[in-house]
Amino acid sequence: MTIVNQLTRAFPKGIVLTSNENTRPFECDGLSVYRQKPLAVVLPDNVMQIKQVLKICKINNIPIVTRGAGTGLSGGAMPLEKSIVLGLSKLNKVKLIDVENQLAVVEPGVRNIAISEAVAQYGLYYAPDPSSQIACTIGGNVSENSGGVHCLKYGLTVHNVEAIRMLTIDGDELILSCQDDGLGLLALMNGSEGLLGVITEVTVKLTPNPAFVKMVMAGFDSVRDCANAVTNIIKAGIIPAGLEMMDSFAIKAAEGFAQVGYPLDAKALLLCELDGIQTQVQLELDNVLKILSGASTLKVSESEEERLNFWKGRKSAFSAVGTLSPDYYCMDGTIPRRYLADMLEKIHKLSKKYQLRVANVFHAGDGNLHPLILYDANVTGELERTEEFGTEILKLSVDMGGTITGEHGVGVEKLNAMCHQFNTQELEIFHKIKQVFDEDSLFNPGKAVPELHRCAELGAMHIHRGELPYPELERF
Amino acid sequence: MTIVNQLTRAFPKGIVLTSNENTRPFECDGLSVYRQKPLAVVLPDNVMQIKQVLKICKINNIPIVTRGAGTGLSGGAMPLEKSIVLGLSKLNKVKLIDVENQLAVVEPGVRNIAISEAVAQYGLYYAPDPSSQIACTIGGNVSENSGGVHCLKYGLTVHNVEAIRMLTIDGDELILSCQDDGLGLLALMNGSEGLLGVITEVTVKLTPNPAFVKMVMAGFDSVRDCANAVTNIIKAGIIPAGLEMMDSFAIKAAEGFAQVGYPLDAKALLLCELDGIQTQVQLELDNVLKILSGASTLKVSESEEERLNFWKGRKSAFSAVGTLSPDYYCMDGTIPRRYLADMLEKIHKLSKKYQLRVANVFHAGDGNLHPLILYDANVTGELERTEEFGTEILKLSVDMGGTITGEHGVGVEKLNAMCHQFNTQELEIFHKIKQVFDEDSLFNPGKAVPELHRCAELGAMHIHRGELPYPELERF
Repeated sequence: MTIVNQLTRAFPKGIVLTSNENTRPFECDGLSVYRQKPLAVVLPDNVMQIKQVLKICKINNIPIVTRGAGTGLSGGAMPLEKSIVLGLSKLNKVKLIDVENQLAVVEPGVRNIAISEAVAQYGLYYAPDPSSQIACTIGGNVSENSGGVHCLKYGLTVHNVEAIRMLTIDGDELILSCQDDGLGLLALMNGSEGLLGVITEVTVKLTPNPAFVKMVMAGFDSVRDCANAVTNIIKAGIIPAGLEMMDSFAIKAAEGFAQVGYPLDAKALLLCELDGIQTQVQLELDNVLKILSGASTLKVSESEEERLNFWKGRKSAFSAVGTLSPDYYCMDGTIPRRYLADMLEKIHKLSKKYQLRVANVFHAGDGNLHPLILYDANVTGELERTEEFGTEILKLSVDMGGTITGEHGVGVEKLNAMCHQFNTQELEIFHKIKQVFDEDSLFNPGKAVPELHRCAELGAMHIHRGELPYPELERF
Repeated sequence: MTIVNQLTRAFPKGIVLTSNENTRPFECDGLSVYRQKPLAVVLPDNVMQIKQVLKICKINNIPIVTRGAGTGLSGGAMPLEKSIVLGLSKLNKVKLIDVENQLAVVEPGVRNIAISEAVAQYGLYYAPDPSSQIACTIGGNVSENSGGVHCLKYGLTVHNVEAIRMLTIDGDELILSCQDDGLGLLALMNGSEGLLGVITEVTVKLTPNPAFVKMVMAGFDSVRDCANAVTNIIKAGIIPAGLEMMDSFAIKAAEGFAQVGYPLDAKALLLCELDGIQTQVQLELDNVLKILSGASTLKVSESEEERLNFWKGRKSAFSAVGTLSPDYYCMDGTIPRRYLADMLEKIHKLSKKYQLRVANVFHAGDGNLHPLILYDANVTGELERTEEFGTEILKLSVDMGGTITGEHGVGVEKLNAMCHQFNTQELEIFHKIKQVFDEDSLFNPGKAVPELHRCAELGAMHIHRGELPYPELERF
């Protein structure tokens, strides 16, 4: 009996999807340029059913690709050939809210924003806020160690998770808590991209709503002035709750889409959110306004409505770009903050070279770049040009002393780049650690960590790790 | 040829210590109740020599116990029977200071405080500050994931390390950086207690000296009032740079030793340090003084000298207790903050029951307890009574929803307690991860993670992990 038949028999109707029509939406994640049809998609209702899926897959030696909402941007949830997609979207209950200790226990399919909504009545929220927070799930957030506009001040997912429950390939349950002694497995699971096990429950840390929040929107006539403002704010000892930068194309796209009042003539836009107790925010605000005194447009949010409006433009920038082009490719390099202006100039030059439009949206505070390259997959050669363009940006990031990914993970997209970052011994350790959890390599095999022969075929491309960290540091 | 002969031949004079006289200081670490003579102590001058030691040990299948300054409190650096102690104290160079990026690259044997001293001229310091910071090394800090009085605000070692270089048992060098993609090996190495490899270099994150610091010293007539003040400060949204509590015995011991002006009649003392920009500190200080208005003594540091003086008492508390008793046993449980008063009352009752004096020094802000039980190992039965007393405190910690160790590690001391905290599958994963790095289990074998047969012999003692995290959370 085929595995599809075994799965179909094992579960009630509606759990196992097999028809082309039903599995098509699962053929890719947010990195839609890569697509693969799975054997079947299983959408279990509970943990017992997950265990059953694992058992059947293990017996049949069939790979499992675990999926949350499929909003990932590096192909982590893209199906593999002859794999089963294990979708956890139905496990979407908030199980416990512990107000006093500021914790919530949730199922993996709970959407990021649903946590904040569930605890809003207690004056709490869940801090990490990826752009996809309306849709993306907490299980996916843990697997990718997601960031967001507020991670500059409030940390990545790994800093906001108290404990997880997970299943090994054998269906054994592990509980990993940041309170525990023993080896740091909780941090290891964060960002493990579905390679080690299936997350069945997450205990997240909640953050009290700040007593007072102000947002500054500043438009600049020059990209360099805007980038300098970013550096000067951080240098002044201020850690904003969010510090975002957009270039001219992104401003126009966002404003056209959301009509929030961004200055259409600005070459660059800075959004700076300050939160905390009122006196402190007021103090920081005064400092920030001094630093931003050279801006051509300068507005401070007068109301909560206005503040959310300022955010709305930024948060809809990706969707806005989506309406302007059949396809776009979102990059995720990270560079030292002080090279932000240089990088933008270089990207604009590359945009002309490759004759492809690009919108730049940066988590400027932590130097994390999201250039969106606009292309049309139906025009011969555009995808290839886009990929070359992207590779040039990643190389620039590394040359500036940065890294190839800030928060979107490796997935299938950045496997080659991993050969640059790690030496053979390091990659071997990654593989062996995967084996500890997953001996037969059934969880998302081939993703996140490149096979050694792949790196060998790429040639001797391990370029700079042998010298790290000095040259990197010197160059910062 | 014996391994001792091989080592002696391989290195110049002064590197290998073999005589009883020379190896005796290495027979224990800060947990002096456990002692073991090693085969030899090797004190290499450089990384090449470390590689040579690993090679010789591997060929001879001899365990290696890596040691920094030997200030650890759980026996992590205690020699094993027929082992080699690999002491890294001579690798004590600060290799690079990167002021702009606030990083320093140091050898593993650099003392914690030596980092802050080296970077002081740039207005920077290294934030984690274990009580032993004058002596303990950064390599040991990483291995134990050390905390300190400032970790409430500035995080543990894991939060302050940017990258490490390490050697596997085969002498291969791995570079682990928090900027990297791939699995989270850097976090895994933090707190791995010498089980996975030898750290040969650490890149630490530096913190700018705060512009303004104030310290409040408050004496209370009642332990409960003091404990409530701790909770109320945190509830007010203030994260002090340090929030320390001492009981009457500890106050008297510290004052007797350091003469810093602690109120000798107080039942409990609170030290609360606030740092940041001046206006903010002033604001927080006003709030804290309101919260502490019921204190019987209340002093705010008027000068830097006075502030350091207030700290001097706290930081010399352990030494002070050491002068009052031939031996003491330092516990390290962690409990939810709100049970601080209950815990102190119970410890005082237990002190009467066991007829042993106890001094309590708490990192109150994060609920981390350091009861110091005073005993005399030369009085028959005192050590046994001390251990029973300690076990009762650990059980109380767990009953209150806490854990058995806050920052001192497992070592040899808390192996049995690990059987309580983890189930068989979890412990098996720990062992397998050790095998990934160290196939023949030569690095500090038997420490930190108990053998499964040990847990089995203890009986079915895995009491609460199956139910975690709910009952724990509910009980907080």
